[in-house]
Amino acid sequence: MGRSGDREREGAMTDWIVAGAGFTGATLAERIAAELGQRVLVVDRRDHLAGNAFDGADDNGIVHHRYGPHIFHTNSRKVWDYLSRFTDWRPYHHEVLAVVEGRPVPVPFNLESIAALFPAFMAENLSRRVIGEYGYGRKIPILKMRESGDDEIRFLADYVYRNVFESYTRKQWSLDPDELDPSVTARVPFHASRDPRYFQDVYQAMPRAGYAALFERMLSHPNIELALGTEFDDARRRHPDARVIFTGPIDEYFDYRHGALPYRSLRFVHRVEEVAFAQPVGTVNYPNDYDFTRITEMKRLTGQACGRTLLIEEYPEAYESGRNEPYYPVPTQASRALLEPYLDAARALEGRVWFAGRLGDYAYYNMDQACARALALFEKTLSRVGAA
Amino acid sequence: MGRSGDREREGAMTDWIVAGAGFTGATLAERIAAELGQRVLVVDRRDHLAGNAFDGADDNGIVHHRYGPHIFHTNSRKVWDYLSRFTDWRPYHHEVLAVVEGRPVPVPFNLESIAALFPAFMAENLSRRVIGEYGYGRKIPILKMRESGDDEIRFLADYVYRNVFESYTRKQWSLDPDELDPSVTARVPFHASRDPRYFQDVYQAMPRAGYAALFERMLSHPNIELALGTEFDDARRRHPDARVIFTGPIDEYFDYRHGALPYRSLRFVHRVEEVAFAQPVGTVNYPNDYDFTRITEMKRLTGQACGRTLLIEEYPEAYESGRNEPYYPVPTQASRALLEPYLDAARALEGRVWFAGRLGDYAYYNMDQACARALALFEKTLSRVGAA
Repeated sequence: MGRSGDREREGAMTDWIVAGAGFTGATLAERIAAELGQRVLVVDRRDHLAGNAFDGADDNGIVHHRYGPHIFHTNSRKVWDYLSRFTDWRPYHHEVLAVVEGRPVPVPFNLESIAALFPAFMAENLSRRVIGEYGYGRKIPILKMRESGDDEIRFLADYVYRNVFESYTRKQWSLDPDELDPSVTARVPFHASRDPRYFQDVYQAMPRAGYAALFERMLSHPNIELALGTEFDDARRRHPDARVIFTGPIDEYFDYRHGALPYRSLRFVHRVEEVAFAQPVGTVNYPNDYDFTRITEMKRLTGQACGRTLLIEEYPEAYESGRNEPYYPVPTQASRALLEPYLDAARALEGRVWFAGRLGDYAYYNMDQACARALALFEKTLSRVGAA
Repeated sequence: MGRSGDREREGAMTDWIVAGAGFTGATLAERIAAELGQRVLVVDRRDHLAGNAFDGADDNGIVHHRYGPHIFHTNSRKVWDYLSRFTDWRPYHHEVLAVVEGRPVPVPFNLESIAALFPAFMAENLSRRVIGEYGYGRKIPILKMRESGDDEIRFLADYVYRNVFESYTRKQWSLDPDELDPSVTARVPFHASRDPRYFQDVYQAMPRAGYAALFERMLSHPNIELALGTEFDDARRRHPDARVIFTGPIDEYFDYRHGALPYRSLRFVHRVEEVAFAQPVGTVNYPNDYDFTRITEMKRLTGQACGRTLLIEEYPEAYESGRNEPYYPVPTQASRALLEPYLDAARALEGRVWFAGRLGDYAYYNMDQACARALALFEKTLSRVGAA
């Protein structure tokens, strides 16, 4: 991949500008370069590629994700096969415990969580009732269980709602659960099994050499030029005729003309401990205690061998442009309404500018969803667009 | 054993040509050479003996089986005694775990698997019912359990069918279970015991110096000449009057005149990890996760002492002549029907050419079955055939 420092290419023509070198941007750039044989300039205002998946070693040599833990999981064979061209994988099943009444118990809340929290006779009774009503192995939305005719099932649902969901939601969003879009609330399940995994996807793994290495390989194509530390506006000034894929914030693209879209941000606090491992699993949630939502132990994710360990605490906070990162689109009906005029403005540019990705679509995407969305956009639309 | 490079023997007469230096071919060659005192030319197009059981050290010095894990097990004292002439043994009980709902549990699915997956009260109840209905220690075909009048037993059977059998079958054969020959499906058992072993045979062991060494000794007889890297057709041109034992693909022998018989193949991916052991047992199956069916840790099988370990992932794939190996005859009624005209053609050659072995019979044989079949063919038929 050419670098912006590569002076002889600076003035070269480009067919496409891709703003953002995260999953969406890198996938689209790779597809256009490799499949259409067209020239792509990828810009990112940050000084690194890989977007929020960026990883690297800290001062202690412990590999971590700068923008919060990224665990790859997908049910899409297509996405898996596509990314497997650029990385080997380390199979990894992520497990999450939530501290409830002082005990770390599995989340999503399941039969093991019940057994860990309640006396045996009560745990058995609750498990029997849930399995009897919904069937072993099922995932039942907590909100649905709260409507059960069975007192004991309602007790359990209320317990989970209060101790795991409600308190975590307040910390995460600084909102009451009923202010959130119902689609978010409706997703929180009880899992009627002992499955210890946080995800149930067919493919769950970490890129063996890390995310940055994966992106290096994705963007390492002679048709791709990568300009880090570069603003999109500068690139467009140099290449006014290039087609544009914009994976930055859609409201920023339109100069916030319909108001700023709200995001939730995070502050990360690193702590190194002089032990091989400090937690039993990759992530421990603290719905009810302290101000952080969760602590992730990087070595559980990466499999790195090392005598000390790095713990990362996550403190949710308000997003302020320029001060922190816009991590999560806020899933409320109000923010949805704010988005509408931007989507209209985006449609008016169709054929010259495409918006995609978490910030471009203002939608929370997992990594595989961002990649799948990019692949679909390429196949359905961009592959039929000629060069600039 | 003479080598084909041994020029003074090149033009020597031979009574028999044995095509294939795997279990079937080596056993027959040894019997004919030692018992009948007749001269045998063993040819194999590969550059090594031992067929798919071939083993050797990789670049890290870790002994592995080039064509997938081979674990020797038999109930036949005759086969055991016969092979024991050519090797010492390392007693070894193979254990297999299957990852179900994120937990590695014993397969064949047994009472330990139930205890590992379900809550205690449920595991106890399921175990009681299965033992009550079929008796402790019994192996019950899953398909039979699915027809039980007991809801709980049917639940268990469906669970095993779905989580262990169905998904694994799809990966292994790229077929729906009901497309397979019922004899395959009917074999999948539930084992009403806590026996951790994959096999229950009386004799279970690995050749102490490896399979290649075993075959070296089998074929090390003055009446046997071994010609590796040699096509059967070349041997036959040189020895047109020799009797023939053909252990290659029966359809290839007849120039595919009735169509090509279908096989399933495998791709192996090797991964070295810098730990003494990476898995709790020799093989871990992944019926539900990823695209490989299983991972085998060679050192568990061979008992080799070494600071690092070799893991071999198996990816089932379509067989393509010349590109990969024909590992598994496909157990469908369609392939059985395709085989019929070839069996007829083979019968027409009786007295001059005999077909045997996995490829010659188009039948999946374990190693001991291939050896037993060869011993029986020798005793019942070939021992009464005169020299050419």
